[in-house]
Amino acid sequence: MDAAVIGGGVIGLSVAWRAARAGLRVAVIDPDPGSGASHFAAGMIAPVGEAEFGEEAVVALNCDSAARYPSFIAELELDAGRSAGYRQTGTLHVAVDGDEQAALERQFRFRQHLGLAVERLTSSQTRELEPALAPSIRGGMLVESDHQIDPRAMVPTLLQACSRLGVQIHRSRASLLVDRGRVTGVGLASGERLDTSKVVLAAGCWAGVVSGVPAEDVPPVRPVKGQILRLRGAPEMIARTIRGESVYILPRGDGRVVIGGTVEERGFDTSVIAGAVYGLLREARALLPDVAELELVEASAGLRPGSPDNMPMVGDSTTEGLIVATGHFRNGYLLAPATADAVAGVLAGGRWPEATQPWSPARFRRTAEVSA
Amino acid sequence: MDAAVIGGGVIGLSVAWRAARAGLRVAVIDPDPGSGASHFAAGMIAPVGEAEFGEEAVVALNCDSAARYPSFIAELELDAGRSAGYRQTGTLHVAVDGDEQAALERQFRFRQHLGLAVERLTSSQTRELEPALAPSIRGGMLVESDHQIDPRAMVPTLLQACSRLGVQIHRSRASLLVDRGRVTGVGLASGERLDTSKVVLAAGCWAGVVSGVPAEDVPPVRPVKGQILRLRGAPEMIARTIRGESVYILPRGDGRVVIGGTVEERGFDTSVIAGAVYGLLREARALLPDVAELELVEASAGLRPGSPDNMPMVGDSTTEGLIVATGHFRNGYLLAPATADAVAGVLAGGRWPEATQPWSPARFRRTAEVSA
Repeated sequence: MDAAVIGGGVIGLSVAWRAARAGLRVAVIDPDPGSGASHFAAGMIAPVGEAEFGEEAVVALNCDSAARYPSFIAELELDAGRSAGYRQTGTLHVAVDGDEQAALERQFRFRQHLGLAVERLTSSQTRELEPALAPSIRGGMLVESDHQIDPRAMVPTLLQACSRLGVQIHRSRASLLVDRGRVTGVGLASGERLDTSKVVLAAGCWAGVVSGVPAEDVPPVRPVKGQILRLRGAPEMIARTIRGESVYILPRGDGRVVIGGTVEERGFDTSVIAGAVYGLLREARALLPDVAELELVEASAGLRPGSPDNMPMVGDSTTEGLIVATGHFRNGYLLAPATADAVAGVLAGGRWPEATQPWSPARFRRTAEVSA
Repeated sequence: MDAAVIGGGVIGLSVAWRAARAGLRVAVIDPDPGSGASHFAAGMIAPVGEAEFGEEAVVALNCDSAARYPSFIAELELDAGRSAGYRQTGTLHVAVDGDEQAALERQFRFRQHLGLAVERLTSSQTRELEPALAPSIRGGMLVESDHQIDPRAMVPTLLQACSRLGVQIHRSRASLLVDRGRVTGVGLASGERLDTSKVVLAAGCWAGVVSGVPAEDVPPVRPVKGQILRLRGAPEMIARTIRGESVYILPRGDGRVVIGGTVEERGFDTSVIAGAVYGLLREARALLPDVAELELVEASAGLRPGSPDNMPMVGDSTTEGLIVATGHFRNGYLLAPATADAVAGVLAGGRWPEATQPWSPARFRRTAEVSA
């Protein structure tokens, strides 16, 4: 075994598939692959729409990963022989009152300042583009370049591609085996051990609780709960993802619609809270009244892996052979191609690309050492 | 076989159990017993709270059935050896604005006029009784005598009692077999037939689509959709069922809470609609703000059997040996004891009691003949 990946979410599976594609023998260990945050995510690939003030440096990395998507998907679908649910449909940000208009104008100028392609729309231009929007919409911002993946298609497609390329999937909890500062393998719940000198820790918000990881290499990751609704019923309602200040409404094009936008920290709690469901429906209806007519198919919650600065942790640890790839927070799908390419490259004997060096988990170790 | 019951909801199972208790050999035929309206119902036993203007005659029948509950449950639990989830907790009706206060006053006077035990409460008395109610509550009406059953306990308990008394449960669709105006048995999907001269048609909203029923005896029943939410989290939030104008909030006493109140006619459609979920949560929060903190465990919809006058159809048909017991609309649990006692009595050779004679399905036949 050339490498083992602990965690079978979109990051772990993407790494395993890319590494297998590079000719490595790879195993993925996960009690239930694809059942965590990757299962519940909406799948927005929105580096421009999600660009945040103060995160300018991240925007370039995000755009780099998003740019890899078309070829990443083409190769994935070729290997798997099935669709990954990738759609280039754009996002329409909308404002429903004066305050939101002012905020949207600031968002627009910030993106212009960064040289990103965005278009500012009047109220009537906004509603012309998406006639189902509420008459109260005050204005919009169109991001043509943002797109989406369907997680309910992407995860099975990644699993299929892995399977076809000979990746072993072990449905088990995993513990890291280390001897004198070097990775020696992974232990399974059955007692079996997989011998390997390289392990990728890609267990999302659980990456901090995998046993056997030396204390100095435990990633400072925490679960950030996102509650999400899945609905269906109106294939023609909207063509693009609609984003308000506190909610997004994402159409799959076949009548399925996803509504999300909540961010909470409640530990490892995936319960669906009535107030969150109510809030999502209220905000979504305010933007798009026809949401009330849709069938509510699923209300669920996923736990995204947040890091101390909410940016990914991808890079080497202090244990030889242990690579960390977690902390992708809201951007697991967006950052899967760049993460997988970088990690698979290193597993195959290459070096970390310059682009992912700011993601190194060493930034938290340095802070710890300085404060110690 | 002395009798077969088509339909394994609360009515069919109650009839079968009571008939078996009277010494009859009984079979119940249902593709999935207890999975219809009986599974989704809240289980309010509220003859006083639900008394409607213009339905004075019904109130007496409803109260009669409710009065049978304590002994019905005692015998059922004895036969089954498990709890049926019966709780005598009362209902508190509340008004949140001036219009609702006026409506509640009319409801109160109407019940007083009928001689029913109800108590009118001021705003502060109401909130003293249930401190979690919103400060905006204007007044209340307490109905101590209304109580509740937990359908998720009652249905398995009925199935268990049936099983212990030797009732055969056939998991199958059923068709009625009739020869020259007399029931001869029931056909199962497997091709098997059960020979019997007495059949009870208790298939709820599907009672009108059971094959083999002669045209003149097809009950004029229609599905009336009710959407319902199941939540959990706050055992101490409320002690009584809270009823507003368009929503009820029912506590099971163990932290589980049921919210319902919708009535729609959309045919055999059990989809959960976003707008209904939103409306139930909005109305419930307006009465009881803490609802927002509860976990939303289930959002579902059941199909209640409505008759043309929304009153039950229980009685003989024109086909010898065919008894109809459906159309219980919102009162399936409430009316199960009276229905089961009456039907089991007739199956055992007795006559229809005076109390259930107004429920005879003949009232719709007469109308049809007059208008023909």
